Amino acid sequence: MIITLKPGTTEKGIQHIVEKIKELGFTPHISHGKERTIIGVIGENPIRTRHLFEAMFIVESITPISKPYKLVSRELKKEDTCVKVGNVKVGGKKVVIMAGPCAVENKPLLLEVAKAVKKAGAKVLRGGAFKPRTSPYSFQGLGEEGLKYLAEVREITGLPVVTEAMDVRQIELVSRYADIIQIGARNMQNFDLLKEVGKGGKPVLLKRGMAATLKEFLMSAEYILSGGNYQVILCERGIRTFENSTRFTLDLSSVALIKNLSHLPVVVDPSHGTGQRDLITPLSRAAIAAGADGLLIEVHSKPEEALSDGFQSILPSHFENLVKEVEKIARSMGREI
Amino acid sequence: MIITLKPGTTEKGIQHIVEKIKELGFTPHISHGKERTIIGVIGENPIRTRHLFEAMFIVESITPISKPYKLVSRELKKEDTCVKVGNVKVGGKKVVIMAGPCAVENKPLLLEVAKAVKKAGAKVLRGGAFKPRTSPYSFQGLGEEGLKYLAEVREITGLPVVTEAMDVRQIELVSRYADIIQIGARNMQNFDLLKEVGKGGKPVLLKRGMAATLKEFLMSAEYILSGGNYQVILCERGIRTFENSTRFTLDLSSVALIKNLSHLPVVVDPSHGTGQRDLITPLSRAAIAAGADGLLIEVHSKPEEALSDGFQSILPSHFENLVKEVEKIARSMGREI
Amino acid sequence: MIITLKPGTTEKGIQHIVEKIKELGFTPHISHGKERTIIGVIGENPIRTRHLFEAMFIVESITPISKPYKLVSRELKKEDTCVKVGNVKVGGKKVVIMAGPCAVENKPLLLEVAKAVKKAGAKVLRGGAFKPRTSPYSFQGLGEEGLKYLAEVREITGLPVVTEAMDVRQIELVSRYADIIQIGARNMQNFDLLKEVGKGGKPVLLKRGMAATLKEFLMSAEYILSGGNYQVILCERGIRTFENSTRFTLDLSSVALIKNLSHLPVVVDPSHGTGQRDLITPLSRAAIAAGADGLLIEVHSKPEEALSDGFQSILPSHFENLVKEVEKIARSMGREI
Amino acid sequence: MIITLKPGTTEKGIQHIVEKIKELGFTPHISHGKERTIIGVIGENPIRTRHLFEAMFIVESITPISKPYKLVSRELKKEDTCVKVGNVKVGGKKVVIMAGPCAVENKPLLLEVAKAVKKAGAKVLRGGAFKPRTSPYSFQGLGEEGLKYLAEVREITGLPVVTEAMDVRQIELVSRYADIIQIGARNMQNFDLLKEVGKGGKPVLLKRGMAATLKEFLMSAEYILSGGNYQVILCERGIRTFENSTRFTLDLSSVALIKNLSHLPVVVDPSHGTGQRDLITPLSRAAIAAGADGLLIEVHSKPEEALSDGFQSILPSHFENLVKEVEKIARSMGREI
Repeated sequence: MIITLKPGTTEKGIQHIVEKIKELGFTPHISHGKERTIIGVIGENPIRTRHLFEAMFIVESITPISKPYKLVSRELKKEDTCVKVGNVKVGGKKVVIMAGPCAVENKPLLLEVAKAVKKAGAKVLRGGAFKPRTSPYSFQGLGEEGLKYLAEVREITGLPVVTEAMDVRQIELVSRYADIIQIGARNMQNFDLLKEVGKGGKPVLLKRGMAATLKEFLMSAEYILSGGNYQVILCERGIRTFENSTRFTLDLSSVALIKNLSHLPVVVDPSHGTGQRDLITPLSRAAIAAGADGLLIEVHSKPEEALSDGFQSILPSHFENLVKEVEKIARSMGREI
Repeated sequence: MIITLKPGTTEKGIQHIVEKIKELGFTPHISHGKERTIIGVIGENPIRTRHLFEAMFIVESITPISKPYKLVSRELKKEDTCVKVGNVKVGGKKVVIMAGPCAVENKPLLLEVAKAVKKAGAKVLRGGAFKPRTSPYSFQGLGEEGLKYLAEVREITGLPVVTEAMDVRQIELVSRYADIIQIGARNMQNFDLLKEVGKGGKPVLLKRGMAATLKEFLMSAEYILSGGNYQVILCERGIRTFENSTRFTLDLSSVALIKNLSHLPVVVDPSHGTGQRDLITPLSRAAIAAGADGLLIEVHSKPEEALSDGFQSILPSHFENLVKEVEKIARSMGREI
Repeated sequence: MIITLKPGTTEKGIQHIVEKIKELGFTPHISHGKERTIIGVIGENPIRTRHLFEAMFIVESITPISKPYKLVSRELKKEDTCVKVGNVKVGGKKVVIMAGPCAVENKPLLLEVAKAVKKAGAKVLRGGAFKPRTSPYSFQGLGEEGLKYLAEVREITGLPVVTEAMDVRQIELVSRYADIIQIGARNMQNFDLLKEVGKGGKPVLLKRGMAATLKEFLMSAEYILSGGNYQVILCERGIRTFENSTRFTLDLSSVALIKNLSHLPVVVDPSHGTGQRDLITPLSRAAIAAGADGLLIEVHSKPEEALSDGFQSILPSHFENLVKEVEKIARSMGREI
Repeated sequence: MIITLKPGTTEKGIQHIVEKIKELGFTPHISHGKERTIIGVIGENPIRTRHLFEAMFIVESITPISKPYKLVSRELKKEDTCVKVGNVKVGGKKVVIMAGPCAVENKPLLLEVAKAVKKAGAKVLRGGAFKPRTSPYSFQGLGEEGLKYLAEVREITGLPVVTEAMDVRQIELVSRYADIIQIGARNMQNFDLLKEVGKGGKPVLLKRGMAATLKEFLMSAEYILSGGNYQVILCERGIRTFENSTRFTLDLSSVALIKNLSHLPVVVDPSHGTGQRDLITPLSRAAIAAGADGLLIEVHSKPEEALSDGFQSILPSHFENLVKEVEKIARSMGREI
């Protein structure tokens, strides 16, 4: 249920209504617009208490939220959410490119890649310290050592860092080092993990599960927002289909649709989404043309020696070219890099 | 097997080798490049006769074709194929937009839409006279009457026409009226229909089946080319997946991948691919950004009264805006409309 | 709309109501039950004429059909349809096993396999004379020669024959030789082909398309029944999914669901459905346990030399064992072989 | 790598070889057969040390394991694994039916259902205390209170209990109350959770992820076994496909294929797999016919009031009938209930 307050309602008036909401067992979510303040009332079927609020003279109107997701929906919040990470804003006019190796392998290599992607135009450094691997016998990531390298490379390059947390017990640790906590596709419905990052204050990059419908994807984001953390970036990274000439099927319709349904920023990961080096640049262009706010690209200076996903990593020189091509698309749409 | 002839080989030399190929029971496909002529040798395992050709002094080199598709592959033909339809070229520098109603319903409406889409920038008129409908009780199209309307509207507007043939018995009829024969997604593996359009000289627009892998899609095109008709335009129109917020999942990776694997032009149908009006413009932009050579768009002046697929049709005014947005993307990539 | 007549309604009364239905532009479909006659009224929205029939004293009740498919639905016909092919009944108490090679290759081999499968318990011989092949360069079947072999082997063994027609122009020919005309998965939505077999009198075995929903599958059957041919056997043969350890994903829920929604008999093809020899026997057992009325099994005496689909063919000795195992399941459910 | 020892090798000989394996940095997994002892050598590429073992006179033969999963593969262990839970054995001659409500709601209801399913033939009680729900606003389960009810009802009925753990922090708690820890479909690739249950001694029921290939499913089981816990039951519960007439597509080919590839027991959950009450009994029969070792069935005495998944729950009376039907199938295959 959305309560729209009349223009000019005082802070005291807002406070009064907020207390009423809590008293009834619901959670209030306040959003200050330019002219009006609106309050989302979240909980089990709040619309049945509609009459209690309609009677208040500071209330302009009351509307039910028809979608199963509330806080992430455009119905509750018309304006785009802009997630701030240091000086970088995800969801604003600028298209934000996040790049780096799939897994952090050692510091010199990470630094080399970080410098190269920064020079080419990347604004955030990506790299995995905890790696979700299908096989228990594959390289599982460097753990805290990898996080330290990321933080050290941030010191040198100034690039904020996005890296994955896979387990509730890692969140405190990852939060100490990272600027954005990534929740991977395989954990998109690891609800306890979502609740945990929902309690924290760090921005979260939530990847779509490979069999998740858009509705389920948005519901998982709702878990995080309903915990109090509104700094969520959604990431389309391909879904599983019968098509086997690409690793996954990158679903760019989802990008345009999410921009309609939700106020959250959306980025696209064409590296995992296609699994093929040759497709990363054209699909990066397409992602931005579909309306994405950013990209997540795997770059490795020696892809053939990568400990994880080498086949879909591109060289720094290719990345440079990718950024140039993406920039042209962004400019043609009135955006920048 | 591909036989590359030495530069300067005479016509007589080519003739000699062509006869040898036929004598051995294979089919030769000649391709004249700027410097060299190359001959595709198609049939069952031609590579076993390699030594017979290697001995000829006009032969520069012999290479096997590693892909199951031969004539559609880039291995056999490096340069992009450009399909000519009147003054329009599909597969060249210009992005070609084909637009019109899903089904032809009556002449005034068709003419109204045709004039509107032409004015906005469409270069080809689409419209179905024979409609593949899930239900035997749904409107099945006007048949020959619809074809006549299409031809009459072509006379008035100058727009060449693309329309579907569903049955081998319709091909002669459709060929009389249409400029491009469309083979629909449900008939992508109707092999007798493919063979029949392969025998004719009309350009063919082949839509990807909703459960077809890229390899199968290219193999279906191979059926047409192996019949002697090289004028084939491929069309991505979405595949079937678990995602139900869109009608199909538009697979734009396929566009980029086909451009790598094949020399044939590729267009995208975001109307059927998404099934949602709001998504057609952003996905049109994305299709061109991914490298598509054109678009197929459903436009109807009264979508709510359309006899078929009204929900995914856009108004002429929306179409005008779509063309403008697509044009910006095309220009940023060095192409035009 | 279903009109149920009162018990004891005379033939003249039925005739009267049938003429009224035709006069209104609808098609009547009469079904004589033990006690009552019911008439299906098929056409565009017949329920709007409800009042005209309610007034007639021979009418007991009128019910709309809620499903998009009418003639195939259990709403219209409660009793199971039993398709008769010579002495064989598909859809009755007995489970019917159809077996034979994927493609007819030569007469001696066909005869050898036919004798073996008959001895083991098969009641119908399967074999393809026209083969839908992904590649234009693969063996396309023997055509009429193959049909003649099938007919000759039927003479010798007494087994009725099921074989595929792929093209409307083949139907007359195939009908001359076959006892059941198969419509393959790739042609499930080749609507002109469906209409054509709907006009004929031969039983049709309709295979589910690899991306067809159950509703679409039943709608395709509706095309055949609405043409006047009620002798339709449905065949589940696997759908396309992301799982790649089997060739398709055999959907046995569809079998149980079709038996709820429709009166038509259902058979299962575990050979194509799994594409793996080792899985054919367990999935045959499972198909019967799920409620299927029969099986379609590929048997070849030299699978390794088969011109088509050798990998999923089983030897006559394995087939013998399969029949024994299936028989146990059938008996435990009160059915026979 | 598998080392097969000669018959009659002494315990001392085995000890010697085990130490050698550890010395080289590998993990030995000993399996005592009737005649021979075989040792699995797990680690990174152990086959390169083959010559060191070949030289030992107690070694009969050495074979590489070709599959990416080692400990779960039939190559390493020929005999079926039988998981013991109290008096119940999953994976033996008897088909084991586990039944109960989706979520534990209160003690009287749980007890009522437990008594009913026990009487009908169930051997294990299922019920969720921690519930993975798509929406943060849905009932999330009773938590420890629910676990206590499960334990109390076990005291009364004697039925061992299977219940889900969603979070590494819950495992100790769940282990205190449950006999089998369930890992749900959404957590099949929550690798830290798998590692954690791999360290414990409780049997684990691992559900297949809705987008997991069979290989990925077996690799997730490998995570548990490689941690030292060999008591794993696999559960097929349907995969996500385009078909929308059922909630998921139950993949019974996977059951037959897993029995070929792995020694672990497999059960099937037709309640989640189909999401439709009417399909649960026929698909239960089919699952057993395909070779499953057991079933997981949702039973609720008031499905229409269930707090979770009421639509797919069956009444105790239906369950009684289901068990009878399944028993007939089981007996026809030489098994019991």
